[in-house]
Amino acid sequence: MPTYKAPVDDMLFLLDDVLHYERYDNLPGFADAPRDVVEAILNEAAKVAEEILQPINLSGDREGCTRAADGTVTTPKGFKEAYKAYSEGGWISLPMPVEYGGQGLPAVLAHAVGEYMASANQAFTMYPGLTSGAVAAILAHGSEDQKQLYGTRMIEGRWTGTMNLTEPHCGTDLGMLKTKAVPNGDGSYSITGQKIFISAGEHDLSENIIHLVLARIEGAPAGVKGISLFIVPKFEVSTKGALGARNAVSCGSLEHKMGIHGNATCVMNYDGAKGWLLGEANRGLAAMFTMMNEARLGVAAQGLAQSEVAYQNAADYARERLQGRSISGVKDASRPADPIIVHPDVRRMLLEIKAFNEGARAFALWTALEADILHRSPDADARQAAEDHLGLMTPVLKGALTDWGFDNTVKAQQIFGGHGYVGDYGMDQFVRDARIAMIYEGANGIQALDLVGRKLPKDGGRAVMAFFTKVGDYVKANEGDEAMRPYLAPLGKALADLQKATMWFMQNGMAKPDNAGAGSTDYLHLFGLVALGFMWARIAEGALARKARDPSQTGRMDAKLTTGKFFVERMLPETGLRLTRIMTGADTMMSLPAEMF
Amino acid sequence: MPTYKAPVDDMLFLLDDVLHYERYDNLPGFADAPRDVVEAILNEAAKVAEEILQPINLSGDREGCTRAADGTVTTPKGFKEAYKAYSEGGWISLPMPVEYGGQGLPAVLAHAVGEYMASANQAFTMYPGLTSGAVAAILAHGSEDQKQLYGTRMIEGRWTGTMNLTEPHCGTDLGMLKTKAVPNGDGSYSITGQKIFISAGEHDLSENIIHLVLARIEGAPAGVKGISLFIVPKFEVSTKGALGARNAVSCGSLEHKMGIHGNATCVMNYDGAKGWLLGEANRGLAAMFTMMNEARLGVAAQGLAQSEVAYQNAADYARERLQGRSISGVKDASRPADPIIVHPDVRRMLLEIKAFNEGARAFALWTALEADILHRSPDADARQAAEDHLGLMTPVLKGALTDWGFDNTVKAQQIFGGHGYVGDYGMDQFVRDARIAMIYEGANGIQALDLVGRKLPKDGGRAVMAFFTKVGDYVKANEGDEAMRPYLAPLGKALADLQKATMWFMQNGMAKPDNAGAGSTDYLHLFGLVALGFMWARIAEGALARKARDPSQTGRMDAKLTTGKFFVERMLPETGLRLTRIMTGADTMMSLPAEMF
Repeated sequence: MPTYKAPVDDMLFLLDDVLHYERYDNLPGFADAPRDVVEAILNEAAKVAEEILQPINLSGDREGCTRAADGTVTTPKGFKEAYKAYSEGGWISLPMPVEYGGQGLPAVLAHAVGEYMASANQAFTMYPGLTSGAVAAILAHGSEDQKQLYGTRMIEGRWTGTMNLTEPHCGTDLGMLKTKAVPNGDGSYSITGQKIFISAGEHDLSENIIHLVLARIEGAPAGVKGISLFIVPKFEVSTKGALGARNAVSCGSLEHKMGIHGNATCVMNYDGAKGWLLGEANRGLAAMFTMMNEARLGVAAQGLAQSEVAYQNAADYARERLQGRSISGVKDASRPADPIIVHPDVRRMLLEIKAFNEGARAFALWTALEADILHRSPDADARQAAEDHLGLMTPVLKGALTDWGFDNTVKAQQIFGGHGYVGDYGMDQFVRDARIAMIYEGANGIQALDLVGRKLPKDGGRAVMAFFTKVGDYVKANEGDEAMRPYLAPLGKALADLQKATMWFMQNGMAKPDNAGAGSTDYLHLFGLVALGFMWARIAEGALARKARDPSQTGRMDAKLTTGKFFVERMLPETGLRLTRIMTGADTMMSLPAEMF
Repeated sequence: MPTYKAPVDDMLFLLDDVLHYERYDNLPGFADAPRDVVEAILNEAAKVAEEILQPINLSGDREGCTRAADGTVTTPKGFKEAYKAYSEGGWISLPMPVEYGGQGLPAVLAHAVGEYMASANQAFTMYPGLTSGAVAAILAHGSEDQKQLYGTRMIEGRWTGTMNLTEPHCGTDLGMLKTKAVPNGDGSYSITGQKIFISAGEHDLSENIIHLVLARIEGAPAGVKGISLFIVPKFEVSTKGALGARNAVSCGSLEHKMGIHGNATCVMNYDGAKGWLLGEANRGLAAMFTMMNEARLGVAAQGLAQSEVAYQNAADYARERLQGRSISGVKDASRPADPIIVHPDVRRMLLEIKAFNEGARAFALWTALEADILHRSPDADARQAAEDHLGLMTPVLKGALTDWGFDNTVKAQQIFGGHGYVGDYGMDQFVRDARIAMIYEGANGIQALDLVGRKLPKDGGRAVMAFFTKVGDYVKANEGDEAMRPYLAPLGKALADLQKATMWFMQNGMAKPDNAGAGSTDYLHLFGLVALGFMWARIAEGALARKARDPSQTGRMDAKLTTGKFFVERMLPETGLRLTRIMTGADTMMSLPAEMF
């Protein structure tokens, strides 16, 4: 059976020694979470993840959700009790505003907790995860009544949320959507249409489900400018929140799918369901994007989370599985064979995953901290810089962390040989669950286009230039430090590759946008590599300082330094290949006639 | 529902214009398969694949195999009828020796046919595939009686075969195996032990199942030198082949697994089952390797086969799915959106798969032709060269084609967005089925070690030097041809990277074998890239010649030239990154203490 241990120590190291969490105690909410409270929260979250969510992960995958003839959906054994413990434990309300019943704690903490929960049970965490996204949209765009009525109960966890975008004929291109909203004359609308791929669309975990639904009001303009966002509760509710009649929305079927079997992925039928406008009419897409951006960072964390849990199991297996002898000579003559961790190729696979996990954790945590600055800082410049950072890094995090996270689950599975493909080690579940993160909340190709087509040129390239300056300055400021040099030289080279690629897009992508599209995915990965390289340099800096200050941590810190060295030596040079690919442009690929594919 | 169309035209192009099949008509068996017969066989195989095997692929995945309480196993609906058609159609006997009931046709043809069948239904083809491997071992190591008794009936398809190596505590390291063989005094042995992961171990397709089982004869030396290979039939048989008593071998359970659900992967229990020695006592591993090498080429073909069928479905989807508009301007104003094949990033994914498929097909077919030369040529030098080629290329083909093949199924799935993860397009089955090929018949890490540790240094590096010479000479001989230059310059660069990597191993891997282990997987991929680059140069040469000779083929041949250009521009440069990684050596990865992983 698979196991999971939440990496509390690593999270604390990042907060203490790399991100210097204590420097932010002037921000609202941070004062409520001083260092000892942070540690206590992480330890408590670890317990929930390890003891409540992880034990029902594999069983949830095997059992899946079931839909009865009347359209009701039952989640796997244990999910209901786990959801009760999860919401009552305050894990949904943790970062939510105090005025709506939240705890107002930093987003960076919620993000750290979120990684643990997603490692333990991704399918489960999608229920509260979608609720959080829906709350974000309601708090950003709802009326005060809506915030009080829906927001507080969702933050409490009594009601859950969903997002309804996709229809059979459109996902990425929402301008084509057909779901209709007809005004009832009393302020409500009658919603009719079919939505597909609706995660957590119907289930038995909460008293009510609040669907956020994109639809077109009768007579609204065609395309994306005629789309509005509606609140459609499963049960109608009184202004006091009492449950009323069952609304005309139902789960038509559950999708047969590759993974995340514990989450109910529904076809949702709206048959004149009663809905209420959320935000302005015809501005629904913008409102939905509030939810999407939030969700994308959560999905990035899922990529890392599956990589982490798969890694832990693979590392344990590699230490325990006896098979063959070291090629450099027998390592443990007392046993019939050496553990497979003696083999360089096994170590290579493990280190590729480990170096990604620890760098990606720093990258995601850093960005979550920037979200706190954006929402809490009194300094307008700092808020602007944080907003730039988030806009730029959201597609990079979503795309790169989920692509690599998935690849890593495959590598971890490979270490088990045949035992990774069959049986109860559960390694194939990590692969199947991680796979969806590359697709939902905007497929990774869409993330790459968002990065290259929208985020890069935005405000004259201000965000990307700021990042280049930050990394370049960091390299310059530290290159006098002998111990840092092994990390900085490769980082400088990788940054130069990224700058060349950016320049190439500026020179070749404007007149011929296909050149930008052709290199977009390579650019996203190139960007992700540089970001991780930057993180590894800062981790090395933190590890060196920590070791000097606290010799008891020498072993752990040396492991960090070695892992970082592996990253910059073997993984970071991929930037050169990505640059080469980008500079080949679009001509060859666009010249093949469609019928010749 | 997924579809499949066997690429008969592409196979014929490779045979005619690249491999010049007609030049081999002096080899025995080839005279029985002139060009028109080859085409007829490929077309007939295409029909079987498309009309019999493919329609039961997705349903076989959904239904899976079932084991009754008495240990009998039922295959999915339609498998029994399909197996009857398959064996009666002569698809098992095609390349088998005439004296045992085979048709004696070239291996290259059997390989081409095998790709089609594996594209259509990998789980199904494992039943006859394992039979073919078992036949190879029996014909190579069995007594004349065994060949007549077992071989002929297996070639006919009335009986099927299995290979039983793995035990719960050992797979790669067979020296540790515990299954015991005790002589009964009548020439037979009593076999006792448990084997796991036994594909096609029990089923309802054939009258009898002939298990080839590795076991240790009582008193034999420990380790690999005490292992023997036994024939253990499910039903005992008379010398005339009449079925007798049920032998004491049974399927204890079916493995729960990620994919290939249509194949029965069994835990096999041998409880004093009657077996007969195959080949010499204590030489069982060598005999089993006859089967393994054969099987590895078949597994390489599975990697390509899944990549091909996934590609076909993705290309169709990309031509049909309307979503968004081309970034270079609307392409089809008459429709609500453009087909997604207008997007460069979709083309990139498709072309990465297509360029692999067509190059890999040439590589695999070339190697199958070398197998024919090895087994049929009267020229001892040619046989030696062919044997060198096969020894060297088997791990490269197995490792590279299955790694890339799997990656390609993931890319193809990605093109479908959410529809690739759920529902009846069947894309996730290709991913799940392709995954096993990286693991079985020697996990790909083992292939890499075999390549670097055994095949490279063998006979003073004769095989690898011959390959370098062949590619180098080819580049030199053709570089005067202007039309060939775009392919040859990148190939020359890639070859130089491979030569540098080889040199680096010679200088750094002897004294410190971990350096070879650390770079082994990168080396395997580097080797695979150069082999595909060589294939693409030869494909380009063939396409240019064909176009000149037969202008009606200009469109198809130009598509080849464009696809090859994409390969050498965007994919082949990966050799540089692989070389960089190899040259970092083992020091960093070996220095991390096991407990710090």
